[in-house]
Amino acid sequence: MSSSFGTVLKLQLFGESHGPAVGMCLDGFPAGFRLDPEALQTFLDRRAPGRSALTSARREADRPEFLSGLADGRTCGAPLTAVLPNGDAHPADYAGLEDTPRPSHADYPAAVKYHGAQAASGGGHFSGRLTAPLCVAGGLCLQLLAAQGVEIFAHIAQIGSIPDRAFDPLAPERPGSGFPVLDTAAGEAMRAEIAAAAAAGDSVGGVVECAVTGLPAGVGAPMFGGLENRLAQALFAIPAVKGAEFGSGFAGAALRGSENNDPYCMENGAVHTRTNHAGGILGGLSTGMPIVFRAAFKPTPSIALPQQTVRLSDGAPVTLELRGRHDPCIVPRAVPCVEAAAALAVLDAALEARIWKL
Amino acid sequence: MSSSFGTVLKLQLFGESHGPAVGMCLDGFPAGFRLDPEALQTFLDRRAPGRSALTSARREADRPEFLSGLADGRTCGAPLTAVLPNGDAHPADYAGLEDTPRPSHADYPAAVKYHGAQAASGGGHFSGRLTAPLCVAGGLCLQLLAAQGVEIFAHIAQIGSIPDRAFDPLAPERPGSGFPVLDTAAGEAMRAEIAAAAAAGDSVGGVVECAVTGLPAGVGAPMFGGLENRLAQALFAIPAVKGAEFGSGFAGAALRGSENNDPYCMENGAVHTRTNHAGGILGGLSTGMPIVFRAAFKPTPSIALPQQTVRLSDGAPVTLELRGRHDPCIVPRAVPCVEAAAALAVLDAALEARIWKL
Amino acid sequence: MSSSFGTVLKLQLFGESHGPAVGMCLDGFPAGFRLDPEALQTFLDRRAPGRSALTSARREADRPEFLSGLADGRTCGAPLTAVLPNGDAHPADYAGLEDTPRPSHADYPAAVKYHGAQAASGGGHFSGRLTAPLCVAGGLCLQLLAAQGVEIFAHIAQIGSIPDRAFDPLAPERPGSGFPVLDTAAGEAMRAEIAAAAAAGDSVGGVVECAVTGLPAGVGAPMFGGLENRLAQALFAIPAVKGAEFGSGFAGAALRGSENNDPYCMENGAVHTRTNHAGGILGGLSTGMPIVFRAAFKPTPSIALPQQTVRLSDGAPVTLELRGRHDPCIVPRAVPCVEAAAALAVLDAALEARIWKL
Amino acid sequence: MSSSFGTVLKLQLFGESHGPAVGMCLDGFPAGFRLDPEALQTFLDRRAPGRSALTSARREADRPEFLSGLADGRTCGAPLTAVLPNGDAHPADYAGLEDTPRPSHADYPAAVKYHGAQAASGGGHFSGRLTAPLCVAGGLCLQLLAAQGVEIFAHIAQIGSIPDRAFDPLAPERPGSGFPVLDTAAGEAMRAEIAAAAAAGDSVGGVVECAVTGLPAGVGAPMFGGLENRLAQALFAIPAVKGAEFGSGFAGAALRGSENNDPYCMENGAVHTRTNHAGGILGGLSTGMPIVFRAAFKPTPSIALPQQTVRLSDGAPVTLELRGRHDPCIVPRAVPCVEAAAALAVLDAALEARIWKL
Repeated sequence: MSSSFGTVLKLQLFGESHGPAVGMCLDGFPAGFRLDPEALQTFLDRRAPGRSALTSARREADRPEFLSGLADGRTCGAPLTAVLPNGDAHPADYAGLEDTPRPSHADYPAAVKYHGAQAASGGGHFSGRLTAPLCVAGGLCLQLLAAQGVEIFAHIAQIGSIPDRAFDPLAPERPGSGFPVLDTAAGEAMRAEIAAAAAAGDSVGGVVECAVTGLPAGVGAPMFGGLENRLAQALFAIPAVKGAEFGSGFAGAALRGSENNDPYCMENGAVHTRTNHAGGILGGLSTGMPIVFRAAFKPTPSIALPQQTVRLSDGAPVTLELRGRHDPCIVPRAVPCVEAAAALAVLDAALEARIWKL
Repeated sequence: MSSSFGTVLKLQLFGESHGPAVGMCLDGFPAGFRLDPEALQTFLDRRAPGRSALTSARREADRPEFLSGLADGRTCGAPLTAVLPNGDAHPADYAGLEDTPRPSHADYPAAVKYHGAQAASGGGHFSGRLTAPLCVAGGLCLQLLAAQGVEIFAHIAQIGSIPDRAFDPLAPERPGSGFPVLDTAAGEAMRAEIAAAAAAGDSVGGVVECAVTGLPAGVGAPMFGGLENRLAQALFAIPAVKGAEFGSGFAGAALRGSENNDPYCMENGAVHTRTNHAGGILGGLSTGMPIVFRAAFKPTPSIALPQQTVRLSDGAPVTLELRGRHDPCIVPRAVPCVEAAAALAVLDAALEARIWKL
Repeated sequence: MSSSFGTVLKLQLFGESHGPAVGMCLDGFPAGFRLDPEALQTFLDRRAPGRSALTSARREADRPEFLSGLADGRTCGAPLTAVLPNGDAHPADYAGLEDTPRPSHADYPAAVKYHGAQAASGGGHFSGRLTAPLCVAGGLCLQLLAAQGVEIFAHIAQIGSIPDRAFDPLAPERPGSGFPVLDTAAGEAMRAEIAAAAAAGDSVGGVVECAVTGLPAGVGAPMFGGLENRLAQALFAIPAVKGAEFGSGFAGAALRGSENNDPYCMENGAVHTRTNHAGGILGGLSTGMPIVFRAAFKPTPSIALPQQTVRLSDGAPVTLELRGRHDPCIVPRAVPCVEAAAALAVLDAALEARIWKL
Repeated sequence: MSSSFGTVLKLQLFGESHGPAVGMCLDGFPAGFRLDPEALQTFLDRRAPGRSALTSARREADRPEFLSGLADGRTCGAPLTAVLPNGDAHPADYAGLEDTPRPSHADYPAAVKYHGAQAASGGGHFSGRLTAPLCVAGGLCLQLLAAQGVEIFAHIAQIGSIPDRAFDPLAPERPGSGFPVLDTAAGEAMRAEIAAAAAAGDSVGGVVECAVTGLPAGVGAPMFGGLENRLAQALFAIPAVKGAEFGSGFAGAALRGSENNDPYCMENGAVHTRTNHAGGILGGLSTGMPIVFRAAFKPTPSIALPQQTVRLSDGAPVTLELRGRHDPCIVPRAVPCVEAAAALAVLDAALEARIWKL
């Protein structure tokens, strides 16, 4: 209905930013898989706030507590449930916001939809904090996919108007740890841009590019069940995502067919394409080439600069100055979220396709 | 699983390009709605091929035959089924293609997925012909939405590198009939570009921009069930769509928060925003402002120019020269398809939200 | 939502009793399966009316026309659509029934639900005629299951108060063709009972018992996705089914645990149970023993005897005398319907369980 | 997929009997509803063990901790999550059972399905303990339904072969508190029967009859989405349920149509039926009359008497003597579980039908 995803592998997210906890329940994950808790924690730490000067000062341990689905460290086939307590919530920072919606947050439409009953402080269920359990679920999927030879990794492709080098769509390379870019110099410029936005009491947007390698051809489904449909459905669940494109995407719209088509060839006895403008997906199905896509993130709407809004109770204009701890740019922390969303969509499609005996 | 869409309103598409028929079954459509068959036909004719020198010469009447769901011209509450017979199929044009996949078509991954059993000629179930029943379903939804005051219309925003004027996101205007652009001069240049691509035995891509007006605030759901998720899931079902963006989209990724945020104001007693970079959607919910989004279409992969492929049976390289009747640019015919996809996603979300007594 | 079923294998039924056609669309059926059309027709003929003095005189060829999903006689992986035209409809028989609901038919609640817009004549979408496309879908599943060693067959376990011999739950035997009972003498008494009801202008109910053999242990899912849940969801789609029980069922409720438990033993190197009160299902999962269940059918509500009803438009009492062609007992024709419903539920669960490489 | 239920209102259950906790996540529940926590606890206490000499000695506080979905005691529209910690688990009682499956429990098929990875002790995810979170979810639904005038209540209709008086299907009466029967003398005999089974180291089964009053006509859907289908899908999620029947059910199969049909009449300006053999459901839709159905429970398979099983690792025969704390009859505690399952199915259908502005 809302916070659930998937066909064979079903994810339900829950929680509000300033409630007792956020969490996830994942049903349909194969039984008998030995979880690597340290690797999961390392993955979650890439998303966690409070880790650098460039991110929100809110500090959450974000160590998932598994309530179900594990027996002796292995998945037991029953639904996996993990809870992340909200330890460092400051709901007082959000007092009064119920009646004065923050521009470009979900506050106003949520107030309409839920007749004012939503847990508004900090965005409630619409908060970016929900990406923590998304990363728990995605982190589990990434481990299972890796065991089958499927790797998923992303990098910051753009901050503001500063681009990183793009993936080679025929052979994408995993970015280094730390600030995930391919071009270190571009990374330095991006960090400066984020610091500049922060200093101005402002925020800045960006783009994440993600690759999936090792997925065999033929995974997906036609029409609404295609890989692009599923990946897009998962990606737009990450708050602030406003665009998604696959392969040559919007740039490809300006090309001729003779430029954009990918000729077939044989390579080591397997069917390959000489180029990969398709981003590894044709007709909703994987082609066996790397899947490459990009997600656009709007600048965080939480800024320190004064903004115009209205008081819902009487319609009076209000100048809003936000308190609270905000990221000047959520794109660095969004990189693992994109990987997590991709892992969910890809594993669901792969299980549906019955390509592995699991 | 694959060719189905929706939660409360459920669509199933079926058929192959050169089989007996294509069609759709739509379950969950409210009972008692009087269908306007002429308006539906007018809508379908906008998608139909063979209507101008710029489109495929394949000529299909595309008059839907309703097998169920209508009684005395009104919906009876039971599933609506409509069939469009395939009258002007030339399967001989596709002889031999099973073994030599066309570049950038679904032929190769479909052969892997279905173990060679797919109805390959003309793309089978992956054919653009499936957008005909998509438009039947969407056309029904458009009529019901219009009766509730919700209008959906799109225009060609770009052909190759030639742009149309963009929608005013605060007050999008419906394009004129015929070639659907806002700027007539841009439209002329686009037509010339399509003709040039055709003359070169090539094809060209483009972008469609779509607006939804009159939808109240609060429709949608958080996370995976958001309007962007649903619209994207529907849009990527249209063959050749490789990107989707909402509001400021990818361009917004280069902005500061202070530039991209939409301040609230009161207008005629209602909450509005002074700008609409959000494209009418925040947190997956409608804001009450116009919904505006864009879909990128790759150039049609079917071109007359010779292309490199391989023979699947023995791996030998093959130079392919396609016969058949192909559109040098499918973007003009895709405009109603985008409207149809949007109508399905919006009506499903609106029914789920129980905003109307239907 | 309504007329759809399944998780991995998805069925959508459509049509009304006196509309142009009834039909089905089945998505998710494995590709590359060669259909046996004669065997399918033989199966459908067991359900078809007009075949004996004991059934409705309505005569339909009921030869499915496949519009999609088949290429050269094999499934191509795309959704399978089949249509059964309504050839021998007599809607005049139903004139006036919109306003005077037939007792124990769906007429009255359907009029409320659909605000009077439903195609009422002959029950519309609620008609038993919808079991024809159910049998098309189930017939396809039965063929695929048989190719995997899974057999499904049913017999008439009771007509009125006349019982047939029950299945041996450890080794159920397929009934003979014709009137499907295990005990020929009981069959004769049943036929006499049906003839007596018909002669009295009345109808009579009964029970169908069904067995599934050859399904490996471990198919199904806990809680809501169990085999009993799925089988029941499918069975209650057959009009007139008012009860479903598995294994010892309602009789088992009167037993002690020591009487009802099934001890384990080894047989030819495999785990078996010495008895099968469980009906082959524990915890929603198949045990590897035969699945045995029973479905109760109410007597057909269409009887020739005068009945009391009301005129909806003014509340006046009306004595109704039904015209039309009705079965005095639908149980014999329901036997293949039960097999079809079971085949759908079992194949969906088996595909979900990924027990076969298909 | 497995432990999830519902279309508009979606429930996910999770947990294992001897893991850290069991719980539920309920998505799609209307926003702004004020929960009555005491009434919920009173409802849960009816299911809880350790409350009488006739039930398992396992004692769980079973006080749900809500992690999400509530703000200031009202539902906020986001998914509701509640956790019930497992406080009084004795997994040592179950040592060794992984290799020697208990007869008529899910142990053996679960070992096959999950390749031995399931959390076996105490039944894991298949345990009756999962009915605790089912009752949390159902208890919430019961409160919302009651606020709309819909009441759901059940009684013990049979223990062993001892029957209670049946509901009057035209006007079912709520049983008294305590041991929920209509006929006190029958209740005494039932309690003696349970005590006798317990004294013999054995167990005994029974039947629960449930009524839903106040639901308007027209709720439900045809075919697979009917009220009977949904209620059955929910009921068979309760461990030990082996049969479900609506209205006259299996007894109706022995009747003539003239006996089983329900004539219409007007009563206080509304359409009623003079009898209610339909159990309030025709064509999958509510008729406006009370919904009445019965669920058969097998005797608890956990008995103290020695039983035959096999050791899975080597096939050796084993005589099993179960330790642990078991109910000699789970039927009394199952009464609120049946009410909970019914409430989930009815509220989901009512929300889908958009009959209330919520």
